Amino acid sequence: MTSGGDAAGMNPAIKCTVDYSRMLGYKPYLVHNGLRGLIDDNIEAAKSSDVSGILHRGGTILRSSRSKRFFEYEHRQQAYENLQKHGISKLIVIGGDGSFRALNQFYSDFKVPFAGIPATIDNDIPGTDYCLGVDTALNMIRQNVDSIRDTASSFSRAFVIETMGRHCGYLAMASAVTSGAEVCLVPELEYDLEAIQRRLQKDIDNGRQFLIAIVAEGCQMGDYLTRWIKDKLKMDARLTILGHIQRGGSPTVRDRLMAFKFGIAAVDSLHRGETNKIMVYKSGSYSTVPIHELTGQTAGIDPILIEICKPLCR
Amino acid sequence: MTSGGDAAGMNPAIKCTVDYSRMLGYKPYLVHNGLRGLIDDNIEAAKSSDVSGILHRGGTILRSSRSKRFFEYEHRQQAYENLQKHGISKLIVIGGDGSFRALNQFYSDFKVPFAGIPATIDNDIPGTDYCLGVDTALNMIRQNVDSIRDTASSFSRAFVIETMGRHCGYLAMASAVTSGAEVCLVPELEYDLEAIQRRLQKDIDNGRQFLIAIVAEGCQMGDYLTRWIKDKLKMDARLTILGHIQRGGSPTVRDRLMAFKFGIAAVDSLHRGETNKIMVYKSGSYSTVPIHELTGQTAGIDPILIEICKPLCR
Amino acid sequence: MTSGGDAAGMNPAIKCTVDYSRMLGYKPYLVHNGLRGLIDDNIEAAKSSDVSGILHRGGTILRSSRSKRFFEYEHRQQAYENLQKHGISKLIVIGGDGSFRALNQFYSDFKVPFAGIPATIDNDIPGTDYCLGVDTALNMIRQNVDSIRDTASSFSRAFVIETMGRHCGYLAMASAVTSGAEVCLVPELEYDLEAIQRRLQKDIDNGRQFLIAIVAEGCQMGDYLTRWIKDKLKMDARLTILGHIQRGGSPTVRDRLMAFKFGIAAVDSLHRGETNKIMVYKSGSYSTVPIHELTGQTAGIDPILIEICKPLCR
Amino acid sequence: MTSGGDAAGMNPAIKCTVDYSRMLGYKPYLVHNGLRGLIDDNIEAAKSSDVSGILHRGGTILRSSRSKRFFEYEHRQQAYENLQKHGISKLIVIGGDGSFRALNQFYSDFKVPFAGIPATIDNDIPGTDYCLGVDTALNMIRQNVDSIRDTASSFSRAFVIETMGRHCGYLAMASAVTSGAEVCLVPELEYDLEAIQRRLQKDIDNGRQFLIAIVAEGCQMGDYLTRWIKDKLKMDARLTILGHIQRGGSPTVRDRLMAFKFGIAAVDSLHRGETNKIMVYKSGSYSTVPIHELTGQTAGIDPILIEICKPLCR
Repeated sequence: MTSGGDAAGMNPAIKCTVDYSRMLGYKPYLVHNGLRGLIDDNIEAAKSSDVSGILHRGGTILRSSRSKRFFEYEHRQQAYENLQKHGISKLIVIGGDGSFRALNQFYSDFKVPFAGIPATIDNDIPGTDYCLGVDTALNMIRQNVDSIRDTASSFSRAFVIETMGRHCGYLAMASAVTSGAEVCLVPELEYDLEAIQRRLQKDIDNGRQFLIAIVAEGCQMGDYLTRWIKDKLKMDARLTILGHIQRGGSPTVRDRLMAFKFGIAAVDSLHRGETNKIMVYKSGSYSTVPIHELTGQTAGIDPILIEICKPLCR
Repeated sequence: MTSGGDAAGMNPAIKCTVDYSRMLGYKPYLVHNGLRGLIDDNIEAAKSSDVSGILHRGGTILRSSRSKRFFEYEHRQQAYENLQKHGISKLIVIGGDGSFRALNQFYSDFKVPFAGIPATIDNDIPGTDYCLGVDTALNMIRQNVDSIRDTASSFSRAFVIETMGRHCGYLAMASAVTSGAEVCLVPELEYDLEAIQRRLQKDIDNGRQFLIAIVAEGCQMGDYLTRWIKDKLKMDARLTILGHIQRGGSPTVRDRLMAFKFGIAAVDSLHRGETNKIMVYKSGSYSTVPIHELTGQTAGIDPILIEICKPLCR
Repeated sequence: MTSGGDAAGMNPAIKCTVDYSRMLGYKPYLVHNGLRGLIDDNIEAAKSSDVSGILHRGGTILRSSRSKRFFEYEHRQQAYENLQKHGISKLIVIGGDGSFRALNQFYSDFKVPFAGIPATIDNDIPGTDYCLGVDTALNMIRQNVDSIRDTASSFSRAFVIETMGRHCGYLAMASAVTSGAEVCLVPELEYDLEAIQRRLQKDIDNGRQFLIAIVAEGCQMGDYLTRWIKDKLKMDARLTILGHIQRGGSPTVRDRLMAFKFGIAAVDSLHRGETNKIMVYKSGSYSTVPIHELTGQTAGIDPILIEICKPLCR
Repeated sequence: MTSGGDAAGMNPAIKCTVDYSRMLGYKPYLVHNGLRGLIDDNIEAAKSSDVSGILHRGGTILRSSRSKRFFEYEHRQQAYENLQKHGISKLIVIGGDGSFRALNQFYSDFKVPFAGIPATIDNDIPGTDYCLGVDTALNMIRQNVDSIRDTASSFSRAFVIETMGRHCGYLAMASAVTSGAEVCLVPELEYDLEAIQRRLQKDIDNGRQFLIAIVAEGCQMGDYLTRWIKDKLKMDARLTILGHIQRGGSPTVRDRLMAFKFGIAAVDSLHRGETNKIMVYKSGSYSTVPIHELTGQTAGIDPILIEICKPLCR
């Protein structure tokens, strides 16, 4: 099943877990519509044709949802009875940490083991350096920022571009660095607008004709910074909110490869008899982490990226 | 020179006019920064290296601007003196009809002949079926709408997507039709929200899980329609404003080809001794139209496209 | 049905003819596998779900084929009986002129009216300026030529790039012009290798460091020209045959729009009681032409394009 | 300087090393044309404008070359004198291991310290899991394979696609897995054509209508396999050699990020007084390795990828 916000790479992960679990002798099922489908019994045995030709498709063919009902015991019980009916004894969930915690509760109630594959474009799941969807999202942003740069450089204009990321500035930071933005504001880093003003004014005095600022959604600085540029730097400025454009697109090769590796790891984890493990990619190697170890943690951002990004905050 | 809002296809048009005018024995110059550069003498003889390797670049290497000073006689006089100084006797301007009218006034004052190449992503210049930049803009929109559709179909959600177009709904209409949108609102067509509600409700009752609506900026309906969908159809809905993403991107083959044809036509028009002519593509053939014939006209939209689009308005 | 070589734009044309014919009160069917499917009865009533979500997909969901059996009367009779069985009285075929001629013969035999929609990336169907698939093919070529240029300019190297086009150099010519190639060889235009050598040698003496030559498949000059560049210009040269890469890819907006217009025209043609008509786009307007008028004709290439291309042949 | 075959990511690496070394107080120079430029003194002080706006460009703005002259002492001496003349005391070279060995020899002769940044799309430099250019190459291949799949699935056809990789099958393996290819032949893995025939024949009997095989250049199996499919499986088959298409294209975000990290590491290595170190990314962390440790080693391929790929070889 897929759960939570959709992300590129979910489809390759679905295909891989279905194919590989069947290779190991299991009978895979598909849960449609996420947690809601678990309650409403949108469950069916997986056919080969269900997962053929999906590797290159964005989003998730299983659809996803956010379900409040799953917080209530009676609905979880309904979900458990659905699984019993189909003879399903183990779950693989592809999604974010909210979904993992929901299944952890489900395990406490009914002892249905699960394995979690991290997938969210925000890259904000603790314990793993990489979540499915991040690379595709970054390349979607790149294409749009490169396009906006054409216009900015043609018209002596500033553009403020808002990326997704409520608590985590990873998308904004990686995009700012790789697109050569002049400013980057994210929740994780302090910024000094006065220093930024001095730096940019000096650049403008030396001939800079346009500028690009990338801000993470979580800063809520898009509107403010746009007006600030007009006021302080006397430069025409526009705000572009990338929004859901970032979620879609055909998965990149990296997201497809990671989907295969996480998918195989998840099937292997359940096959070994483990439960409540999250697949993680940490310091270049793949492993599994018990979900309780992730509780209370926050996702860390690559310290080298932070160092490269700091000069854009001041 | 390029003037007004930037559009993909300007660079190939620059290259073509420089190369072709030189082939006919002229000495081409480049005016940087649009009308402002005419006044401020940002003018220099064109070198081959200036226009090599620019065919595939979005925006305009000559930069553009909107200049209020050009409305005043004294600044136009300054511009005229600059041209005199360089020995420039004819102008080619790549831009919108505002720029054409400005140069028409300039001709009235100082008798400097010009030829105009229509370039604006809104496709709203009267007298021509095509303006440079439109095809690239449509394909940029397509990529982003295709990406949003991945997410919409993964999450049982409605997306309202706002395209550029203050007075002209061409981008919205062509995008809605070619992306299979369910709703399209544009300034040119009346819409019936009650009929739309009945139609979509029926679709939803029959199993439709997501929907995409495309609205032209000029309707100012983005926010309203998003709330309307939530209220009336009880579907989660999000607004995406594509904004300046639409302007950029490497010119498509069509924009490059049209740039060459308009560019050659413009040089030929001046070479024949004509003046104040706008290059137009009308009913499949290329011709020139005196600018005064365009005054007061509005751009017409392809009637077949309108017919295909009408069912999306009710 | 779709027939002959596949082309981007076939899927939008299928969707449009199904939807629009149903709107007019017809019951549309889908013939799978082209002419072969007509003989083998791979025919089924079209469901809405068959044609939903296909607008953005390359190739043809109906699959295509080349069938020698259709040349024989008995197999055509089998095809006729299949149509009778389903109660199908009219055909729309999306393909090339070979397919149109086959259905013309079929009409002579059994009086089943048909309408033809031109679709082939070679753009070589007489009577129409545009065939579905051409714009997408040109943009696929553009992306790859732009990519090869990165390498050519990094390494002081010549690249010879072969495009599709057995008898028609349209793809090669349009690509050469819009990518700024230095040489273009096509079946339609005479070329003078000695003149080319003198021109390029002069460029090289003036500092040119790399060059790109585009040749149409039909010239069979790829290998020869690559060796010729090494021998005569003493420049490292590589041949790239683009091949089937050119056929695929998500249809561009232009191919989708043309598909809609041709699709509506084809349904309208049959609805008016016409038969054996080919949809054409000529000099900017849409019309229908009796197939017999196309016999013996060859497709003409845009004379402006030829003029722009000539300097690349000498 | 850049040296050897060009790769996407070289330009971001150039920009980063110039900017970061200047930040540390050094005066950076640019060597044009690789080793050849070192001999011929194509060397100049780096200006800010040289490296602005290059992040998104494929290939290398410094141009590259392969130089046999550098094997001779007298030419290396000339190179040394050129460096002396400019006051250049340290070198950063972005390229493959041939280039690193050449500079190692140069160091033996004249004690000019250098740092090497691995860049080659083949991913075949020992000691590092990643070389600049690989991710962009994989995504270029992906787009073209996805496009060919459109055609293959429309026409009941087999496609054999040859990727680059003389000794290393990484590109072919990663592409085969992530594009869902049915067959993959690489130099590293034994393959069993009879087993492949049995497997594919069974698939075809079960309804498979098309297939895609990806082979690494180094296997020299492209032509053979294409004929083999026609003979043994009675399926129409075509060969596509991707060639230099794979080298170009705007660098992906991953290649830009890796370029920054390698670039900073290289400057830091020289700054710390190290010499003859190659920057490597191994098991998820960045470090430097003395070049002599790499001698005689061969690049290893990710063992998980090999496991996923094995079923495609038999």
